[in-house]
Formats: sequence, structure tokens, C-alpha cells
Amino acid sequence: MSSSRINRFNKERDALNEVVMKYAGKTTKKFYNLDMHAYEDGALPGKTKEMLGLVASFVLRCDDCILYHLGRCRELGVSDEEVAEALEVGLLVGGSITIPHLRRALMAWDEMA
Amino acid sequence: MSSSRINRFNKERDALNEVVMKYAGKTTKKFYNLDMHAYEDGALPGKTKEMLGLVASFVLRCDDCILYHLGRCRELGVSDEEVAEALEVGLLVGGSITIPHLRRALMAWDEMA
Amino acid sequence: MSSSRINRFNKERDALNEVVMKYAGKTTKKFYNLDMHAYEDGALPGKTKEMLGLVASFVLRCDDCILYHLGRCRELGVSDEEVAEALEVGLLVGGSITIPHLRRALMAWDEMA
Amino acid sequence: MSSSRINRFNKERDALNEVVMKYAGKTTKKFYNLDMHAYEDGALPGKTKEMLGLVASFVLRCDDCILYHLGRCRELGVSDEEVAEALEVGLLVGGSITIPHLRRALMAWDEMA
Amino acid sequence: MSSSRINRFNKERDALNEVVMKYAGKTTKKFYNLDMHAYEDGALPGKTKEMLGLVASFVLRCDDCILYHLGRCRELGVSDEEVAEALEVGLLVGGSITIPHLRRALMAWDEMA
Amino acid sequence: MSSSRINRFNKERDALNEVVMKYAGKTTKKFYNLDMHAYEDGALPGKTKEMLGLVASFVLRCDDCILYHLGRCRELGVSDEEVAEALEVGLLVGGSITIPHLRRALMAWDEMA
Repeated sequence: MSSSRINRFNKERDALNEVVMKYAGKTTKKFYNLDMHAYEDGALPGKTKEMLGLVASFVLRCDDCILYHLGRCRELGVSDEEVAEALEVGLLVGGSITIPHLRRALMAWDEMA
Repeated sequence: MSSSRINRFNKERDALNEVVMKYAGKTTKKFYNLDMHAYEDGALPGKTKEMLGLVASFVLRCDDCILYHLGRCRELGVSDEEVAEALEVGLLVGGSITIPHLRRALMAWDEMA
Repeated sequence: MSSSRINRFNKERDALNEVVMKYAGKTTKKFYNLDMHAYEDGALPGKTKEMLGLVASFVLRCDDCILYHLGRCRELGVSDEEVAEALEVGLLVGGSITIPHLRRALMAWDEMA
Repeated sequence: MSSSRINRFNKERDALNEVVMKYAGKTTKKFYNLDMHAYEDGALPGKTKEMLGLVASFVLRCDDCILYHLGRCRELGVSDEEVAEALEVGLLVGGSITIPHLRRALMAWDEMA
Repeated sequence: MSSSRINRFNKERDALNEVVMKYAGKTTKKFYNLDMHAYEDGALPGKTKEMLGLVASFVLRCDDCILYHLGRCRELGVSDEEVAEALEVGLLVGGSITIPHLRRALMAWDEMA
Repeated sequence: MSSSRINRFNKERDALNEVVMKYAGKTTKKFYNLDMHAYEDGALPGKTKEMLGLVASFVLRCDDCILYHLGRCRELGVSDEEVAEALEVGLLVGGSITIPHLRRALMAWDEMA
């Protein structure tokens, strides 16, 4: 995805999250907060956690979630080979049903370069 | 979703269902019929059943199904707080993978107001 | 499930949760806490939320989760007809793949009487 | 599975279905009825439909459903090679997450010989 | 889908697969190769395997995969009645959550005529 | 799981894989082979790949697969804190429906110590 497409994705995401917060109760807000902090450096570096989040999103086949974690992987310096190997594990575990997501994921990764 | 977007959604849905009926055998027709009556008032009020259908659709992550049940919830007078709490249960059970659907669901709910 | 089977289920669950807490980091502990409070009375009564949790667990086909919510539904006075209608929505949404879980759920419900 | 294990599986299934029928409303009964007739000869022979049901159950990873359709495939004369090729499609589509089910499926098939 | 829409789908698919191959390691390439050969005539005719792939894709609810197998079914001479019965098995196994995919599948099938 | 339970798990697994190989066609054999090599050291170390496989198995909720990857993580020196953080990402992405698997996973991990 070109950087303008990424910007659009992020803006839409922010606008939608505002609507979520308009309706969200305490539990939803706390969940968002947990989620925000779950990928920080710990015993495992944030970079590894983002790859874990990427592969979890990939086998569960959520394009928006995949895209989000790919963006974070880019920011944290994950290499082409590393992202390809992470998705390869996802492809084997998740099967050919994940191939359309693999295509869109690697196209987005390529455009982020 | 603005009312024009809702109308478009419903029209497309009707047009596609006509194509289904062109090809559908007896089993598919009977399934459609069962589905149509499953949300009527019974021991549980229709309103509760629509929320059950909403949360089931939400954790299975089907945007069209979520949108359909949200529309029915609006018609049956489900309040903002009720729909938010129902989706909150879905968020906890289904995890962060449901967040993109939560965003789209609450945006649609907001536009239906 | 006979009351002795329920007691065994609850004891095993407690023993396993102790092991979870031995390893759990802050995020897991907070998640457990969120989960514990998500089914309390709010705009929706706790009873309705337990049925939402039941149907979500049912279409995602997790026997332990189904059993847990069935037990809570019993405690909160959900009737036979109500639980049957809730699972009926789950059966329609989730299809015949849920039937083995329907069998086990209603057998457990029956034994809890 | 040895024939005594198959008999036990079928008896348990019948006993559980009796409990389902004790609680089932009209919709559940009609769903059971639809399900019973959906695999009859039509434009596609019953044998092909059972293999479709088998592969659908396999990628959705329901051991009881897999076992049921394997039994029906045996009765309708599906060969070892045919069942292996059907499951092979399931393995590719569904990925390595299906392997534990593949093991149990082929062990059951072997015991049914 | 009109033949121009099919052509567009195939072109996009080819373009995306090129990006996959740019990043793919040996395992991904071998997986693609396995996948390409899994639907060839064997003990089961290719036509049956494509219907197995179709129903597996349908219950796992992947529109791109459904579309691909529908196209292959067309090429191999699967009739309207056969495709409708295959999807009917999928509808029963997978439940009403598959209905939006049924609509899009039969609309695409209709446009391929 | 105590080491005797692990040994039993591994023995059963081997026995079942022999049955798979009795029926398996070329595609299944090649898939097994791909799967065996996918977790070797590459751009990502084998240890990271096993954690990716663990979290993928966890969010897809396959106990046998989780157990297998936990065993491999033990062999490759993954620490308690690392496995807990990996599963924490899985819990957040996959939601409370994964909790029964979290309990069994950490009990098995504890017994492997």
C-alpha cells in the first residue's frame, strides 16, 4: 500500500475508534487499554510480539488486523525475510484458505517499502 | 450508515436473495424459512433473540450478519447502552480480532440513529 | 451432569486457574478481571448477558465455556424454554457443526436440574 | 474404531439426541429433519454429498461430525483411496491445524474396515 | 459476475501472486505447487475435488476461494443443480452465517453462465 | 504433564501417524514433509518460529497442536516468561474463548518443567 493508502487507513481507523469510544462502556475501554500495552517490550521484545500478533491475525484471517501488525513490524525494523517466514508459518498452520490474505498482506508490505 | 446506505444494503440483499431462490433447492428454501421465524417472540422476546443473533454474528465476524441484526435491534427499540453491552460481551469472548467489526458495527449503529 | 460431575468440573477449573495465575503476567490478570465483571447487571440484566455469553461460546464451539455459562444461567433462573431458544438461535446461526455441542449442552443442562 | 467402539458411539449419540428432543422447540426439530434429508441422492449422489459433509466437518474440525460422515461413507462404499483424497483436499485447504483430526479420522476409518 | 469482472479478478490474482513470489521462501513455493496439483483427477475425479474445495471454502467463508472454485467448477462442467446441492450441504453444516457468502456465490455463478 | 504423560502423548502420536502414512497419498506426504522443515532456523530462529506456531495453534484452539509446540519450546529453551507472554498475545487476540486452552497449556507447561 502506498503511503497515501496507509495514511487513509490510519485516518479511517482513528475516526471509527472515536465512534467506538462514544458508545464504549468501561469494559471496552479497559480492553482497548490492555490491547495497547500488550505488545510492549517484556521478556519478549516488542518486535517478536508484533510478529506473534501478525501470525495470530493471519490464521484468523482478519485483513485489517494483519495490516495493522504489518505496519508495526515495518516501524520496528522487521526485515522482508522475517515477515515472509512468519507468514509462511501461518500459511502452513492455516492452509490454502489463508492464501488470499497472504496475497493482500505481501502486496501491502511491498507498498510500505 | 445513513438511511440511504441502509436502503442500498437492503436492496442489494433482496436482489441477491432473488438469485439464491433461482437456484435454491427445497432444503435451502426450508432453511431460509426456518431462519425467518427463529427470531420471533417466544419464551425469549424477539428483542433478546436479535441480540443473541447479533453477538453470535459478531464473534463469528460476519459484517453483513452484524448489520442485519443491528437493523432489527433498532426496529425493536434496543437502546444504545444495550447494544454496547451486548457487543462488549462479544468483544471479551471473541478478543481483539473482533475490533475491526466493532468499529464498523458501532459506526453503522451511529448512522442508523 | 450430576451435581458430583459439576463439582468435579469446578474443582478442576479452580486448580487449573491457580496454575494460570502462577505464570500470568499483568495483562492476563487484568483480562481475567475484566472477564469476571463483564456479566454483571448493567443496561442488560446479568441473566441476558449470560445467555449472550452462552450463545457466543456455542457458535464458537467451546464445551467448557458452554458448560460454564449454562451453570451461571441455572443460578440466575433461566428456564428450560429460554435456554432451549437461546441454543436454537445458536444452532441456526452456527449450523449442524454445532449439533454435537447441542447434545452435550442439553445433557449437562438436564443433569443440572 | 473397532465395531464395538462404533456401536458405543452410536448408542451414546442416540441417548443424547433423546435429551435434545426433550428440550427442542419446533425450529430445532425442523433443523434436524432438514439435516437428515440433505444427504439423499439428488443431482449429486448421496455418496458425493457425504464426502462434502466429511470435508466440511474436517476443515471446521469437529471430530464427532467427521466420525459420523466416515461411517456413512463406509456404508455407501467409498473406497480407501477416495476417502484419503477427500481428506487431502481438506488438509490443504485447512492446513496443519487439521492434522490431529486427520490422525483420528484415518484411525477410525481403519478400525471400521 | 460478468466475464469482464472474471477477467479482472483473474488479472488481479495474477498480479498479487507475483508479489507473493517476490517474497516467498521455499516452503511457500512448495505449498503453492502442492495446492496446484491437489485437484487433479485421481481416485476422485477433478470435478468432485473442486466441489470439495468449494464446500470447504464455503464453510470457512472465504469469498475469493469460493469464487476460484466456482470458476473451476464451471470449466469442468458442474451443472447448476450440482453446484446448488453442494452449497446446500455447506449451508446446513455452516449455518446462517454462511448466507451472505451463498448470495455472493450464486450471483457470481449466475454471471458466469 | 508429567514426563510419563508426555511419553504417552508422543507414542500415541507416532502410532496414529503410521496409520496416516498407510492411507496417505503423495500430497499428504509432501505436506508432512513441508511441515517438518518449516520450523527450522532461517531469518527467524527456530525458537521464534515455534512460538509463532504456538500462538497460531492457540488462537485456532487446537490442544494437540498447542501441546506439540509447547514441547518444542521447552526443548529450545523458551523461558516461563516468554511462553507466558506469547500466550498473553494469543489471549488478547483470541479472547476469553481461549481461556480453557490457556489453562490446559500452562498446566502442561508446568508439568514439563
